[in-house]
Amino acid sequence: MAAPAPTTQQEMRQRNLARVLHAVADGGRLSRAGVAARIGLTRAAVSTLVDELLGAGLLTELGPGRSGAVGRPGTVLALSDRGPCGVGAEIGVDHLAVCAVDLRGRVRVKTAVDAANRDSDPVPVLRQLAGLVRETAEEVRGLGLRPAGLTVAVPGLVARGTTTVVRAPNLGWTDLDLAPLLGPAVPGAGAVCAVDNEANLGALAELWLGGHTPAPGDFVHVSAEIGIGAAVVVDGELLRGTRGFAGELGHVPVRPEGRPCACGGIGCLEQYAGEEAVLRAAGFDPAAIAARHPGPGARIDLLLARAGDGDRAVRRALREAGTALGTALTGAVNLLDPSTVVLGGALARLAPWLLPALERELGRRLAGPPPVTVSRLGPEGPLRGAAHSVVRAVLDDPLAHRV
Amino acid sequence: MAAPAPTTQQEMRQRNLARVLHAVADGGRLSRAGVAARIGLTRAAVSTLVDELLGAGLLTELGPGRSGAVGRPGTVLALSDRGPCGVGAEIGVDHLAVCAVDLRGRVRVKTAVDAANRDSDPVPVLRQLAGLVRETAEEVRGLGLRPAGLTVAVPGLVARGTTTVVRAPNLGWTDLDLAPLLGPAVPGAGAVCAVDNEANLGALAELWLGGHTPAPGDFVHVSAEIGIGAAVVVDGELLRGTRGFAGELGHVPVRPEGRPCACGGIGCLEQYAGEEAVLRAAGFDPAAIAARHPGPGARIDLLLARAGDGDRAVRRALREAGTALGTALTGAVNLLDPSTVVLGGALARLAPWLLPALERELGRRLAGPPPVTVSRLGPEGPLRGAAHSVVRAVLDDPLAHRV
Repeated sequence: MAAPAPTTQQEMRQRNLARVLHAVADGGRLSRAGVAARIGLTRAAVSTLVDELLGAGLLTELGPGRSGAVGRPGTVLALSDRGPCGVGAEIGVDHLAVCAVDLRGRVRVKTAVDAANRDSDPVPVLRQLAGLVRETAEEVRGLGLRPAGLTVAVPGLVARGTTTVVRAPNLGWTDLDLAPLLGPAVPGAGAVCAVDNEANLGALAELWLGGHTPAPGDFVHVSAEIGIGAAVVVDGELLRGTRGFAGELGHVPVRPEGRPCACGGIGCLEQYAGEEAVLRAAGFDPAAIAARHPGPGARIDLLLARAGDGDRAVRRALREAGTALGTALTGAVNLLDPSTVVLGGALARLAPWLLPALERELGRRLAGPPPVTVSRLGPEGPLRGAAHSVVRAVLDDPLAHRV
Repeated sequence: MAAPAPTTQQEMRQRNLARVLHAVADGGRLSRAGVAARIGLTRAAVSTLVDELLGAGLLTELGPGRSGAVGRPGTVLALSDRGPCGVGAEIGVDHLAVCAVDLRGRVRVKTAVDAANRDSDPVPVLRQLAGLVRETAEEVRGLGLRPAGLTVAVPGLVARGTTTVVRAPNLGWTDLDLAPLLGPAVPGAGAVCAVDNEANLGALAELWLGGHTPAPGDFVHVSAEIGIGAAVVVDGELLRGTRGFAGELGHVPVRPEGRPCACGGIGCLEQYAGEEAVLRAAGFDPAAIAARHPGPGARIDLLLARAGDGDRAVRRALREAGTALGTALTGAVNLLDPSTVVLGGALARLAPWLLPALERELGRRLAGPPPVTVSRLGPEGPLRGAAHSVVRAVLDDPLAHRV
């Protein structure tokens, strides 16, 4: 057998370092021996890898554990809570938010402010966001953490592998590269790592932080802020699509000859289950309501309060939205065969009123409908997912993030 | 750096052997140096790997090439046309077929017989198929080839990673494990390697043998025999779904309050674009037509002849089917963002009559619809895909297929 070429040895070392970090992240209180058993490498190989990761400030030792096995108890390993951290930012239609999470996935700093971003000039919006990111970066440095990167969640389509928002209808932004507007304003967090669709990041948050053991490999995550977003996870990976536009459940036709949609389509789900559609179906004027109830979640608060008070028009509107979601999800389930459908974002809050009609519709159309669950992260998902995507990048490629 | 554990070295060797085989398969007339350049290993490492593959009967040397480079011209490498071969079998509603392909992807033996498999007893069907497989295996042995495995294509849902047909509505089979019925009857082809849905194998054939350079990474492949099948390829891999049931485009609702479907759903695509639906819309009695025109492709021949003769009812029925396909595919495109939609199977033959309405419907609903192309493989896809899946398994894991 030929000696493998250096490129491949290097790849193998990187992969093994990443496997050690992921084992520690996923495995609870593991010693070196525990890591070795978990990933199937020798104790000696793991020790060398662990020493390198300790030196790089990515791992830390918590002192001797109680292994229950014969011999000296091994030292328990943990991801460092002082090394690199991930910074996430969210541009909502009516808010901006920034948070930082450490390698252990704990939120260490979080800031959110109300904002009026609908049909906005992007320059001041991004200037304000950059200011929040800068403040967050300073604050985490005070905690002994080092920002390893920034991911920004936006309510719109992002061209795959770029930082360009192709279309964010509610912000009124098209073909806009966020990096030059935001990048130089983020000292210490490096260049903008990534810009991603909020529904994608919400789904990744569910995958990484949703509290599932084991993590569900295949699911459809449906969320909403103003529009309806969705994302598809297949074998533990986000399905992005050719252009990065996959997951547009909001524009699946549910009433094929129904209402025209702003996207140019006809009878799209968003026209029957989007926030404005629900408000209109409940007898409200969406524009007037948005003016009287600004801020993130305010219209959802209103709908929940009215539904709780027994308002029949609101309850009916939410039932109809649940039915329309069920019709669109029937198509998605037939195409994707997911293990679960997860309701996230604002839909998680509305779930008690949506679920009965949604499940009835799935049951009417599918022989074996998948279970529909409700995300614990709810509207926090996209921001948590944004910050945690940076942490995942560190765990996946530790050599690039040594001190 | 610790010495990598043996498992991983072994994995790396297997991966490198597979990379050499795939480079030779994809790269045209390559020498050892050409392979090394293509896969980024050293010339020495590649030579050792090539020698091992020559010894295993998987590669062969074609004599000196003209490299155009300085120095001795390298010997041109090719996959062996005498080593292992893949055997594919297809159970259609009205036919059985078997073929064998060599490592170069060339069909060496092919047999097809008409059969009446609708609502059939599986025992005699599989006995007949096993006989055809046995004859094919004998014939390829006479050509110096060695059957490395068998994959069977079925018009139904197959439980992921098993040989069990969960539901094949047109055959009338449910929860049927094909392996015990077929396995012992296939000497020399080993145990049944795999049973897979015909639409999945048609899509894989398009990926591997469709004549695309480069192969499209993401596409939706829509095919039909009696039902409507589809399969989704993402980043060059088939999307299987949790249970193995992904790609059920035929049961996406296109007229949500329309005709009841045999699946228990309502307004499914199959009720508007399946063979029976098209025959009925064209004014035929599907059962009478099937009795008068048995055999694979016979009703498609009839529809093509009538449409070509200007039969307005048939042309309208095909237009309506195209429109219904467009509605269902709008949902699929929104969810998956494929680079292309490919019409395969019987739909490839009907494409001239379906495409205008299909593309009009996509254009009416989508801002940037993907191109719709027609498979060159047509109804041959599933059988070719079945046989070639065995070849791919040999290329992916050469150590398991040494002589």
